[in-house]
Amino acid sequence: MSNPVIDKIVNQVFTEKALHEFYCVGETCSGWERNIVDQPIAIKKIVSNGAARISAGKGIGPELKDISLARMIDHTMLKPEATPDEITTLCEEAKTYNFASVCINPSYVPLCSKLLSGTDVKVCTVIGFPLGATTTATKRAEAEEVLDKGAEEIDMVINIGKLKAGDYDYVFNDINQVVLAAKRKNAVAKVIIETALLTDEEKVKACLISKEAKADFVKTSTGFSKGGATSGDIALMRYVVGSSVGVKASGGVRTIEDAEEMIKSGADRIGASASVKIVTGDSSKAEGY
Amino acid sequence: MSNPVIDKIVNQVFTEKALHEFYCVGETCSGWERNIVDQPIAIKKIVSNGAARISAGKGIGPELKDISLARMIDHTMLKPEATPDEITTLCEEAKTYNFASVCINPSYVPLCSKLLSGTDVKVCTVIGFPLGATTTATKRAEAEEVLDKGAEEIDMVINIGKLKAGDYDYVFNDINQVVLAAKRKNAVAKVIIETALLTDEEKVKACLISKEAKADFVKTSTGFSKGGATSGDIALMRYVVGSSVGVKASGGVRTIEDAEEMIKSGADRIGASASVKIVTGDSSKAEGY
Repeated sequence: MSNPVIDKIVNQVFTEKALHEFYCVGETCSGWERNIVDQPIAIKKIVSNGAARISAGKGIGPELKDISLARMIDHTMLKPEATPDEITTLCEEAKTYNFASVCINPSYVPLCSKLLSGTDVKVCTVIGFPLGATTTATKRAEAEEVLDKGAEEIDMVINIGKLKAGDYDYVFNDINQVVLAAKRKNAVAKVIIETALLTDEEKVKACLISKEAKADFVKTSTGFSKGGATSGDIALMRYVVGSSVGVKASGGVRTIEDAEEMIKSGADRIGASASVKIVTGDSSKAEGY
Repeated sequence: MSNPVIDKIVNQVFTEKALHEFYCVGETCSGWERNIVDQPIAIKKIVSNGAARISAGKGIGPELKDISLARMIDHTMLKPEATPDEITTLCEEAKTYNFASVCINPSYVPLCSKLLSGTDVKVCTVIGFPLGATTTATKRAEAEEVLDKGAEEIDMVINIGKLKAGDYDYVFNDINQVVLAAKRKNAVAKVIIETALLTDEEKVKACLISKEAKADFVKTSTGFSKGGATSGDIALMRYVVGSSVGVKASGGVRTIEDAEEMIKSGADRIGASASVKIVTGDSSKAEGY
């Protein structure tokens, strides 16, 4: 992929008057895990407006009332101190409530793959996470290993410094190597661009490169940086990737108005690492990523 | 390494009355980058008490007055958005002032190796950083790749969840695989145990396992978790590993008293990701990790 081509597309995108409508950049939504927990109605609106998947942490109890949400939930635990017992509980909850997937760190892929064998619950893991600053070869090797061990969805982080430097060939190849590894196993590949660290122009370029590298999804945030998504980010990302690539907003649901704005802006999935008290309004067991 | 052996050693360590003297656990020193910048005299005391290496960020100017500190400085930039230009500046400063090493993310090893070729400045990078939650095979592959590309020191993060679960064989092998890769290239291997997330008993076990796995150093923190080192941690780590393994305190230098306490407690190196205004007292260019 040559830089002139990217530059041409970017320039064209930026000259489109319509783009300006999407620059509804709000506040960065720090503490969004709590906000989404405190706004169960927002989640229902998100779903009714087309969201395909929602992330949520351990602690889902029998009080999960709205069972229709279950197949949209990515049950997530990425904290480094998570123990096998906690991951086992995560998997048990995922089986009990028939969640879409569990999302865990690579060293827990074998455990989750074993525990979820024969169920509909998928194993999702993360690559080059959360800095995205390891080498392309290491990301590819990490992806191949987790896919061999049972991962069915992988969320990789781009090399942010190289993007900022305009080294688009590097960024493209970095993403593409992981996507190619995923495709060989029919796995879903999501690309985390970490919007909190990017300018709007960099977000556009990251999305264009992700699309060209055949990613299935672009996702806003790792949850380990300065903040989550804004509705402006979602609008921008959806506008740039078009309808063929999914957009996942990791966080950013601050209020019902934010949620509606994100859906209006084109988010396919909403990520929030908190308890699925989101459907019950009971936030007592909510926790970070 | 069998668990009974570890348990026996740990029990023995904990029964030693002398250990209690070392439990001078202070506050977790968040914001320690600033503290070390604001305490140049503390650094001089640390060095005069035996510290071998100090970390510091970009921004060292010609005003570096105490040239004797230069060979003790690990010049560090680990933020994910660091650009090649910033890394180049880091290397130029390291050459100009003859610092001991630059410490950067894996994707910048080739660049630093090229820029520092023929100089005394070493290339240090990080493995499984900062969560430590990827697989052992990926950590080993990452280590081999960066060593092939010119890294001479590697700082790896342990698997914290497995340690908490008491899976010591896993933790030992996870460390040992990286250490073995380093030894084959005569590189230095440091083990980051992330003290902010561990109980005292877990810190002891992590140090014993690191020592048995032939690590050259144990290091307190990644700089990406909840806090830096405390003097109590340093004392405990030094006591457990003895004199054959180095101890690096990443942060924790809150006051001159803290610094003196850490040295008294046995720290060999003090890490702080801030500008080397530490030697000048000028903190205007200080930055985080």
